[in-house]
Amino acid sequence: MASLSKTSVWRRFSSTFTSKPTPSKTHLHAPIPDSAFPKGYVLTGIHAGVKKKPGVLDLAVILSTSSRPASAAACFTRNAFKAAPVVVSQQVLEQNQGRARALVVNSGCANAVTGKQGMEDAWAMVAATDALLEPNQGQKSQKETLVMSTGVIGQTLPISKILAGITSQSPKSVDSKSTLGSGFEAWERAARAFMTTDTFPKLRARTFSIRGKEYHLAGMDKGAGMIHPNMGPPSGQLHATLLGCILTDAAVVPKSLQSALTYAVDRSFNSISVDGDMSTNDTILVLANGAAAEGSAEIDEQADPEAFELFKQELTTFAIDLAQLVVRDGEGATKFVTVSVDGATSYADAHKVASRISTSALVKTALFGEDANWGRILAATGSIPLSAPLDPTRVSVSFIPADGTAPLPLLVNGEPEKVDEVRAKEIVSAEDLEIRVDLGLGNESAKYWTCDFRVREDQWGL
Amino acid sequence: MASLSKTSVWRRFSSTFTSKPTPSKTHLHAPIPDSAFPKGYVLTGIHAGVKKKPGVLDLAVILSTSSRPASAAACFTRNAFKAAPVVVSQQVLEQNQGRARALVVNSGCANAVTGKQGMEDAWAMVAATDALLEPNQGQKSQKETLVMSTGVIGQTLPISKILAGITSQSPKSVDSKSTLGSGFEAWERAARAFMTTDTFPKLRARTFSIRGKEYHLAGMDKGAGMIHPNMGPPSGQLHATLLGCILTDAAVVPKSLQSALTYAVDRSFNSISVDGDMSTNDTILVLANGAAAEGSAEIDEQADPEAFELFKQELTTFAIDLAQLVVRDGEGATKFVTVSVDGATSYADAHKVASRISTSALVKTALFGEDANWGRILAATGSIPLSAPLDPTRVSVSFIPADGTAPLPLLVNGEPEKVDEVRAKEIVSAEDLEIRVDLGLGNESAKYWTCDFRVREDQWGL
Repeated sequence: MASLSKTSVWRRFSSTFTSKPTPSKTHLHAPIPDSAFPKGYVLTGIHAGVKKKPGVLDLAVILSTSSRPASAAACFTRNAFKAAPVVVSQQVLEQNQGRARALVVNSGCANAVTGKQGMEDAWAMVAATDALLEPNQGQKSQKETLVMSTGVIGQTLPISKILAGITSQSPKSVDSKSTLGSGFEAWERAARAFMTTDTFPKLRARTFSIRGKEYHLAGMDKGAGMIHPNMGPPSGQLHATLLGCILTDAAVVPKSLQSALTYAVDRSFNSISVDGDMSTNDTILVLANGAAAEGSAEIDEQADPEAFELFKQELTTFAIDLAQLVVRDGEGATKFVTVSVDGATSYADAHKVASRISTSALVKTALFGEDANWGRILAATGSIPLSAPLDPTRVSVSFIPADGTAPLPLLVNGEPEKVDEVRAKEIVSAEDLEIRVDLGLGNESAKYWTCDFRVREDQWGL
Repeated sequence: MASLSKTSVWRRFSSTFTSKPTPSKTHLHAPIPDSAFPKGYVLTGIHAGVKKKPGVLDLAVILSTSSRPASAAACFTRNAFKAAPVVVSQQVLEQNQGRARALVVNSGCANAVTGKQGMEDAWAMVAATDALLEPNQGQKSQKETLVMSTGVIGQTLPISKILAGITSQSPKSVDSKSTLGSGFEAWERAARAFMTTDTFPKLRARTFSIRGKEYHLAGMDKGAGMIHPNMGPPSGQLHATLLGCILTDAAVVPKSLQSALTYAVDRSFNSISVDGDMSTNDTILVLANGAAAEGSAEIDEQADPEAFELFKQELTTFAIDLAQLVVRDGEGATKFVTVSVDGATSYADAHKVASRISTSALVKTALFGEDANWGRILAATGSIPLSAPLDPTRVSVSFIPADGTAPLPLLVNGEPEKVDEVRAKEIVSAEDLEIRVDLGLGNESAKYWTCDFRVREDQWGL
């Protein structure tokens, strides 16, 4: 099908683009001690055969082994064209009232725009993974698996290969080839099975404590292209392909878990942009299996707001870490840019302005060209309607160097500064950079993370 | 100032980008017979010295010589950072209740983000041009000039050079070097003075008749970069740099002229995108001096809706011609792409979807890569909230070849078609192409015109 073929004619030109290569990202992946991962999960990543190249991982299976029921929550893309796995995961969450014990994820094929067959395939993945779980209080038939897919749009899954791959992980089968484990190697295999055009597996772990009790968070995600997520809780319409999952051994009431995730996703995955395009598959899932919460009640937003707040902040900080990895590995990105908007009268206004600057083609090409072009930042800032109209005489723009040296003001209260060109060049030449815009109207702030646009250097004034 | 410097380090790479050069656009500019231009205008373009290179035109002066009062209307950018000439032209129109007799336009400097000095300079341009006009019923002091500027942001105008340039055109001065004229050469000089990174002067003329009486329209515009206008009538906030003016010898009541222009701009200049970024200076002005309407009353939307409708449609068709020239000459564009959205329940919904597809970086890079990637079109289509939610099973996508041969369906009622790759490649290899999306919900349609994104060929799956 035409839409799926790579246009190989362009490949032959690639070798001429030797100027300014994409920086290596391999240092962003390093071993993590086994003890840092949440308790009560076994997982793996295998080659099921969705991807043609032998040995390349394309299927992840994650199971909770906790004796407690696991809570689950999710944020899905708001794209009107929901891929089958998105629809199925939403239905599983609804039917189980926010409980789930397993995740199954494939890369290489998005199972999007695949009609009835796509839905059947996604449900078959759920059933095959359910069969790997220990019986849940005798209710063997309950659907307890959430499913995610990423890859090309418009192709059906090689479902028999996928089902065989899932079944091969059963510890109960006679010829079990199960590679399920709980140490770093198992987590890394799962993270690798998420990858499409990502250049490194994105895996992080974090330990935190609430009232002296220690808990763990671990997460994996993938991105690279079609990255401008706009995800909401299951009730909404869908948009973006970014996939991520976060697993914790804390115990949290399902409704509170969703509330914490929605807050965290707004400030993390919904605050990043690579190319400004939302996918049909974007999904962030979280499981909380309570394996480290023996003897404790589930965290409940209503009953114990203080504990909930601690958990929510931990989850948000962790989600920001995971989201930033996607920007760092954005397709063709050579820079990691933080866009901070301060002085707004609402978080929504601050977020809108930060999003607009982060998706402006002219701002992103100027960043690639290492040009301190505040005119483009200002034009982007002024181009969207806000609930509180901008006052041009109150707006300030500055560059904040990543090395902690002094900020460089470019525009102060609407008046252009006399800019030291050498200093400006120093700052914009670094891989990391912060653009700070102060609207001068209120006390609300938002942050966005974006990368540059690696255009042809003979374009857009570069 | 750092923001204004071209980053010359990139220039040296340009020579390596010999693959797929930008197609020549020179055939889009050709002589027009003198008789095709509207009566009652004299105009010119001169080198005032805003641009450093000697002889390059940077100042246009356009005067109505009609004995009738000229009506004027305008649509200005909705960007919150309004450039001084935008604010001044708005005030002139308000003070004169929609009457004006002159236009003055400079390129090379946008007079944007220039504070109090910028406002003084714009008013000085108005006064100097007013002085060239014949006294209007003795009211010599009336401000009757509209002003536009385009170029770099954050620099003040070399105002004395500009004022000397304007004054040099006075037929009354002793040492007059006036080059004001009314034939093709004069119109072309004016059009050239609008240019920034445009590769050809954008000038068109059109003859039309209402009830047997013949009228003329002539227009000039410029674009190239920071092109995604969103302009409204003078009351609104401002956004986009696209400059254009349309001159006619019809007679139209000021309020009706504004009504016709607002309609025309929504369907022309507000329906084009080059890079998705709106400027601080975007302005479209129209003057109607009635020089060909001797003995006729002014066209009035209330009094004679039929004549008004004819005029509005002529103006709209003409504005679309002018707007398309900007897309054809978009910075780095190699393709001219029409995005048609049919089957919407409202024009606003159809326009939103067409705009989203036209600004999608992934759609635009696929077009540059000549890849019939309907998945990217679909993801863009579904990524924005609409007043009538999309039904994925009703959406169809096809490519319409520019040569009149059969359309190529890619997706029909949500089901992917088996696409003939050779045929798809043929269609997307042409310079002109139409993407048609049918939402299958209603009878409303909108069109947008966009170009491809000339990215590095090793990026975004190309």
